[in-house]
Amino acid sequence: MTPREPRLTELALIRALRERARQAPGVRVGIGDDCAVLEAPGGSLLLATTDLLIEDVHFRRRYAEPADIGWKALAVNVSDIASMGGRPRWALIALACPASTTMDEVEAFYEGIHALGDEHDVSVVGGDTSASPSGWVVNITLLGEATGAPILRSGARAGDMIAVTGDLGRSAAGLAVLERREAPARVSAEALAIVTAAHLRPRPRVKEGRWLAAAGGVTAMIDLSDGLATDLRHVAEESRAAARVDLGRLPIGAATRDVAVATKHDAVGWATGGGEDYELLLTCEPSAFERLRNGLGSATGTTLTAIGAMEPGAAGVTFVDADGHAVAVGPGFEHFASGARRE
Amino acid sequence: MTPREPRLTELALIRALRERARQAPGVRVGIGDDCAVLEAPGGSLLLATTDLLIEDVHFRRRYAEPADIGWKALAVNVSDIASMGGRPRWALIALACPASTTMDEVEAFYEGIHALGDEHDVSVVGGDTSASPSGWVVNITLLGEATGAPILRSGARAGDMIAVTGDLGRSAAGLAVLERREAPARVSAEALAIVTAAHLRPRPRVKEGRWLAAAGGVTAMIDLSDGLATDLRHVAEESRAAARVDLGRLPIGAATRDVAVATKHDAVGWATGGGEDYELLLTCEPSAFERLRNGLGSATGTTLTAIGAMEPGAAGVTFVDADGHAVAVGPGFEHFASGARRE
Repeated sequence: MTPREPRLTELALIRALRERARQAPGVRVGIGDDCAVLEAPGGSLLLATTDLLIEDVHFRRRYAEPADIGWKALAVNVSDIASMGGRPRWALIALACPASTTMDEVEAFYEGIHALGDEHDVSVVGGDTSASPSGWVVNITLLGEATGAPILRSGARAGDMIAVTGDLGRSAAGLAVLERREAPARVSAEALAIVTAAHLRPRPRVKEGRWLAAAGGVTAMIDLSDGLATDLRHVAEESRAAARVDLGRLPIGAATRDVAVATKHDAVGWATGGGEDYELLLTCEPSAFERLRNGLGSATGTTLTAIGAMEPGAAGVTFVDADGHAVAVGPGFEHFASGARRE
Repeated sequence: MTPREPRLTELALIRALRERARQAPGVRVGIGDDCAVLEAPGGSLLLATTDLLIEDVHFRRRYAEPADIGWKALAVNVSDIASMGGRPRWALIALACPASTTMDEVEAFYEGIHALGDEHDVSVVGGDTSASPSGWVVNITLLGEATGAPILRSGARAGDMIAVTGDLGRSAAGLAVLERREAPARVSAEALAIVTAAHLRPRPRVKEGRWLAAAGGVTAMIDLSDGLATDLRHVAEESRAAARVDLGRLPIGAATRDVAVATKHDAVGWATGGGEDYELLLTCEPSAFERLRNGLGSATGTTLTAIGAMEPGAAGVTFVDADGHAVAVGPGFEHFASGARRE
């Protein structure tokens, strides 16, 4: 449920699919949010999300072990449930591997799934296996339960504050390290471990999502899979409001900054466009922010940082510097630069 | 939810996954049947199944149009819901295509999905799209509703009759035609259309599954995806009973027989091991068979043919000829002989 930046004709297709889903029975929220929200016959609200991970598009086997692949494939789905404030429950795992794959590798893949799944009470209830003529292909569908009203992308209003959990750009920093032949000089082993773990084994914010959804005052929420610029634009578009982000307020960790300096990258660019951080981006009533920040810190130990505000005006995202001048930032998450992407 | 014939080590892994799922909360049936059966919070029973289709493993683009791929990817999942006697509801579609794919092709793919989906009130409620470094990859997860107690693979008892809907081997005959450079001589255009449609656009037996599940007397049910020999063995193993099939009673259509003769294939081999027929295989109390056959015919127009019986003894399947002698039949469904399969 993390569509990449679509082309114009693809947008028309997605619109048509959304329109169909909107009219379907039992579909509270169809295409266009992190999860579908479905009305189960007994009256409960079911969340459903699916993600496809493909070798050399979403990961490389050179540095992603089978257990990392399993962990991350589940994590990206768990994060979608987290962003709706839901509780993950049941996973269906489809795996295709080349003929050279060993049983040990397949077992390690499932160990990675269970390592994360056990932390969040996710049960693997079904799946499919297949041969693959080229690399690994993983599809996970995750079902969850909405314990309250799911927090959608569409609820932000002009005047709301914009905030993010944790810090940004770590996964992109990790990817930059992993894609190199050699570790960058003058970066501590600890910093390297922090950023590579963020890329290979992201920790979706389930506790945080449920706490925030239940706390009141959160108007919209989304997980940061494609990068702040892209994901916040989704919120702005779905909410029909403008978003302004102060670049100076973006939370960026010391490890990320160290790696950026050592590899001659821009840490702010990673924070806005790097993607795959799997932090939560939310909007809230300004009066609620302090309560949410303090309460989230007490309940989960996770930071919440205000980074901007929703404003009246056309849907879109503006990044401003310390002087309040608009600054262009790069596009959202791009997969490997070799460009196997369809869009 | 159609695992191919697993190797021994894979069996151990599947057993471990099943054991884990069995202990998980809310999981009525986990790994090991056509669908998972899940207890939604409101008390309703949810069915969930997932299938991965990969170019040059499960289909070839030379003869499968994008709309055919979409139709079949949904059909194999709908068939899993049908075999539990359930009602299909919501689909999540993941699609990866190479860079050369056009928007028209993607639209046609969705048209194929909707063409079948509309027949069964299936709504597309979510999905994911990605680039693919090689061919098309499609994963569909389908959620359904169990309107009564789902009919499992494990309920067959010694003495039960074994029966199948429709006729067998058509899809394999279609594949044999499609894989040739030229249409076989001395086969009518109508016969060719029947068998190729069976392969490219199978029609899952949803009405039949629901009618049979509600009728009473059906003890086990499965859909014929991997072929009679393999799928009946699953029933025998899950039910811990032996199965005997009279080869002479297998329903095989005239078109399938014509194609077999023209292409020098064995129609009975297709019927037992060809796979992808997406008919229903069931066991029932002997006293119920006539009622089920007549009732199913009246309600749906679909035939039900008795092909054998469950017997005491070790779990397994025996095929016998007209003299009652055991006959060896080939293995179940194999994907393309080029052998990209993992097992």
